[in-house]
Amino acid sequence: MQLTLYSDYSIRVLLYLAAKADGPATISEVAESYGISRNHLVKVVHNLSQSGYIRTTRGKKGGMVLGRNPKDISIGGLLRQTEPDFRLVECLQEESSGCPIDQVCSLKSVFRTALYAFLNTLDGFTLADITGNVGLLKPILIDRARSGKGEAFSPERDKSPSAVLPVGR
Amino acid sequence: MQLTLYSDYSIRVLLYLAAKADGPATISEVAESYGISRNHLVKVVHNLSQSGYIRTTRGKKGGMVLGRNPKDISIGGLLRQTEPDFRLVECLQEESSGCPIDQVCSLKSVFRTALYAFLNTLDGFTLADITGNVGLLKPILIDRARSGKGEAFSPERDKSPSAVLPVGR
Repeated sequence: MQLTLYSDYSIRVLLYLAAKADGPATISEVAESYGISRNHLVKVVHNLSQSGYIRTTRGKKGGMVLGRNPKDISIGGLLRQTEPDFRLVECLQEESSGCPIDQVCSLKSVFRTALYAFLNTLDGFTLADITGNVGLLKPILIDRARSGKGEAFSPERDKSPSAVLPVGR
Repeated sequence: MQLTLYSDYSIRVLLYLAAKADGPATISEVAESYGISRNHLVKVVHNLSQSGYIRTTRGKKGGMVLGRNPKDISIGGLLRQTEPDFRLVECLQEESSGCPIDQVCSLKSVFRTALYAFLNTLDGFTLADITGNVGLLKPILIDRARSGKGEAFSPERDKSPSAVLPVGR
């Protein structure tokens, strides 16, 4: 049972911005810091911007900053946005599944109960909770990025088709 | 977030056996009943047998039956056996991940807490709970199988390499 890489990277972007806090960050800077592909982050950042989790500005001194207070970003709420579905098994899809006992099987309600417990737990944690030890996070994340060659975020360039994140598992 | 098809099919096999209850069932019979590939079930059945969830016998009247009382088969316990891992994100793997903040990030403990809530909930449900409405399940499952051409389970034949289940997502 895994979350998508898309969710993983969404959390990492927000975590970086919360750790930096003192100014905008670029996509390249975040990518360098985590040692991950810049291309993989472009769609993540675009969607985080669309949903208000981050704000982006263009120009030389442009980049991205958090769009909300870390205390107001629940991990459960974020995952509900970033995960394509929580269809643990075939029969949890919205349309009727191909399983012949779909209408009479109580497995669905059991899995829904467990899923509720999972998300409900994550609703209880915010970005502020996981960046509480920012004193430890900041030197690792920001120093790594500074040792690389960050470049400013450019929404225009980032709309290229190659920017689409392959949602890996 | 999804479980593997392997876990899905493992539950379906046990559910069928609990619904039938009055004698051994064959792999083909279960496959026909659910309208799924027999080959996909072979490794599932082999492993359920290895872990004692089912008992298999050879011969004309052979087949598989539940190896435990449905009340003693917890859904959480079963998933712990059938899921290859619960590594929600990269950093939850056993060995150290490539993430630079692996040692100082508290996201891991947040996800472990949520995962515990998920599995703990499923530990509270047994196969008996999801087959409580056996009066509804039985006519659908068993009648569908009887309309097909079931054949007896043969552990020897089922060890062929082609029997390995591709764990789809």
